[in-house]
Amino acid sequence: MEKMNKLKVLRTKDADFEEEFKKILFRREEVSAEIEKLVKDILRDVKKRGDQALFEYTEKFDQTKLDSVSAVVSGEEIEKAYDKVSKQEIDALRLAAARIEKFHQKKINQITIKGEKGEYLAEIVSPLNKVGLYVPGGKAAYPSSVLMSAIPARVAGVKEIVMVSPTVSPHVLAAAKIAGVSHIYRIGGAQAIAALTYGTESIEGVDKIVGPGNIYVETAKRLVYGEVGLDMVAGPSEVVVIADNSGVPSFAAADLLAQAEHDEDARPILITLTEYFLQEAYKEIISQLGDLARKGIAERSIEKQGAIILACDINEATELANRIAPEHLVLMVDKPDKALKKINCAGAVFLGNYTPVTVGDYMAGPSHILPTAGTARFFSPLGVEDFVKRMSVISFSKESLKDIENEVRRLALLEGFDAHAKAVEKRTKF
Amino acid sequence: MEKMNKLKVLRTKDADFEEEFKKILFRREEVSAEIEKLVKDILRDVKKRGDQALFEYTEKFDQTKLDSVSAVVSGEEIEKAYDKVSKQEIDALRLAAARIEKFHQKKINQITIKGEKGEYLAEIVSPLNKVGLYVPGGKAAYPSSVLMSAIPARVAGVKEIVMVSPTVSPHVLAAAKIAGVSHIYRIGGAQAIAALTYGTESIEGVDKIVGPGNIYVETAKRLVYGEVGLDMVAGPSEVVVIADNSGVPSFAAADLLAQAEHDEDARPILITLTEYFLQEAYKEIISQLGDLARKGIAERSIEKQGAIILACDINEATELANRIAPEHLVLMVDKPDKALKKINCAGAVFLGNYTPVTVGDYMAGPSHILPTAGTARFFSPLGVEDFVKRMSVISFSKESLKDIENEVRRLALLEGFDAHAKAVEKRTKF
Repeated sequence: MEKMNKLKVLRTKDADFEEEFKKILFRREEVSAEIEKLVKDILRDVKKRGDQALFEYTEKFDQTKLDSVSAVVSGEEIEKAYDKVSKQEIDALRLAAARIEKFHQKKINQITIKGEKGEYLAEIVSPLNKVGLYVPGGKAAYPSSVLMSAIPARVAGVKEIVMVSPTVSPHVLAAAKIAGVSHIYRIGGAQAIAALTYGTESIEGVDKIVGPGNIYVETAKRLVYGEVGLDMVAGPSEVVVIADNSGVPSFAAADLLAQAEHDEDARPILITLTEYFLQEAYKEIISQLGDLARKGIAERSIEKQGAIILACDINEATELANRIAPEHLVLMVDKPDKALKKINCAGAVFLGNYTPVTVGDYMAGPSHILPTAGTARFFSPLGVEDFVKRMSVISFSKESLKDIENEVRRLALLEGFDAHAKAVEKRTKF
Repeated sequence: MEKMNKLKVLRTKDADFEEEFKKILFRREEVSAEIEKLVKDILRDVKKRGDQALFEYTEKFDQTKLDSVSAVVSGEEIEKAYDKVSKQEIDALRLAAARIEKFHQKKINQITIKGEKGEYLAEIVSPLNKVGLYVPGGKAAYPSSVLMSAIPARVAGVKEIVMVSPTVSPHVLAAAKIAGVSHIYRIGGAQAIAALTYGTESIEGVDKIVGPGNIYVETAKRLVYGEVGLDMVAGPSEVVVIADNSGVPSFAAADLLAQAEHDEDARPILITLTEYFLQEAYKEIISQLGDLARKGIAERSIEKQGAIILACDINEATELANRIAPEHLVLMVDKPDKALKKINCAGAVFLGNYTPVTVGDYMAGPSHILPTAGTARFFSPLGVEDFVKRMSVISFSKESLKDIENEVRRLALLEGFDAHAKAVEKRTKF
């Protein structure tokens, strides 16, 4: 490994490559015992004392005094906020909303299998009743994230979409109105996760909580797993750009910097197939960095987390990308459709020179809430699937039951469950 | 509420009904701090020391001395086990396997949306690479559960299905062979979850772990959430039987007792629409109880967790069932298809007089690994969906990017991300 002025550079041919690459394979770190204890206490306290505890923690952590009335964002306040947002911005939000809605209008297959003699099996898919949308406060309160989580829920048919956020900007409220959010509460942090999980006097509990938050929120979500449904666990934003010489170095650099400006833990990684592209992209990164409004953040991300990897060929490059399982993957290569076939683990894939990650962040249609930190190995982008549940249906007639009676009883008895076998016999001998 | 000799009886018309019903609404209890600490230490230790720690814990908790060779169940051992199982039992397992496979051969929709000017969006569904199947040891090592978890994984296309179990009976091994399990290891407990999550020298880490276990296993699973994929959180088995006078009291009683024989925390609940059925079913429960091989366990379950509820009509009955969100729901009513339409939350529903839960446990087709403890509000039966992941694909041309350029840039700037906006500009101005 060498270190150019700003970025780590790895070449797959180097002897220490595997060792250095493993350092790039970011996996989640353990949460400190203190944070976990603090969060656990908050969860337990809100579960026990409801509103009172919720409002105490809100005052303590968010410096906001709330009661059961002021915790609710009123319809009037939402309308006022909406009117404050410029027409151009509303139009942009509406265009994004329409595209997100269109992409998520998929049909989820239901099953009906009719057997002989009146037997049938089915699987029924139905929307969740109530979901909670966590929207981070402060600068991380993004109207785009409201659209990207609430619209798939609405399309899935969820009746009640409850949004919580410690600070609500006019843009966030306008997005919530456009997306069809049912209720909005001015709460955040671990205490908001507790309220959504257990319910309080003011806030009804939900069936599932989605949306990313800070370390306290993510820890709280992990702790309530199984008491309430959850989406994926969120981490810092990541991008891997694979580029051959058909790619444009300035485009690759721009995508890496767009990730880098998120926060200093964001991870921008470029995999190139030629030394030429490596050098050109590096120069572009340094040069474009100078022009950025969030230069400081982007620079720290590039220096701390960034890397350029020189791979031998597209097979090696895609193999490395699969091992990273990145949130965003840009295939800036000659035949992106062909390269896509080699990709097995990624949140969202962006093809060719003219698909910046930005277009997926705001407008393309698929949700930008994507698995991070290598979890694309098993988590999927947020989608309508996250807002439905399946239910199995089994129906036998006396005749069809008799047909399989012996085998069912045999397996039940083999496992030592004689009452299970008798529940069949009672019927067939009736 | 009254208490008949053995069971709690609730009538919805009673003044204290709501209060008593809430006690029935079982929700998960908090795991003790000691168990959590113990499990956390095991996870950390196996992550750090690999095989050495894994084998030490196996010796300590399972009284089994293992090394990297003896931890693996060999192909030869599997064949021998298979040959030991009677032909009739193999036939029964094979029939179950064939039915489970047929039910799970569903198509999961993939999306492709072609836009104008070369734009397109897609969603690709692909199988997980490696999954781990947890199979409890001792008496809870059920061959049926091996079929019910491994077959959906195989149908989904998972390449490597790794099974772990602290004790492997010939029946379990025969089921694993029939189901197409790739590797079997003789390990269990929290240390097995650690090994599957982090990998050790002998055991490769997997992408997702499914299958129920004891409190240590379930705690370990909860703690690794997000480092590895997980299925639902498992709890004691439950059944709700809704019966009107078209139902047969002895069938209802038999289904309740079949749940009750699982373990003393199992929850058998009957909702009847008439006093007549209530009394008849009660008599049947008491009378059938006497004949059971596992009478002691079933009796304790009935006494501790059982209940009969008298509801006014089918609407009230189904509403109560939805609030319980049971793992198994039997609709032993006049028009079960009509009643089914009112059911919103349940794992699996069994229609009419001739569909005992037993048939779903062993043979019907849908997996018997189902959400418990009210989690059917948001979890689904184990299915092929649990063994695939989705990946979004976005592809724009220069022209299609130009069409939405202004809106994308506006939203990026509104959120303060100027590098995001520049990544678009670089391309449209190129």
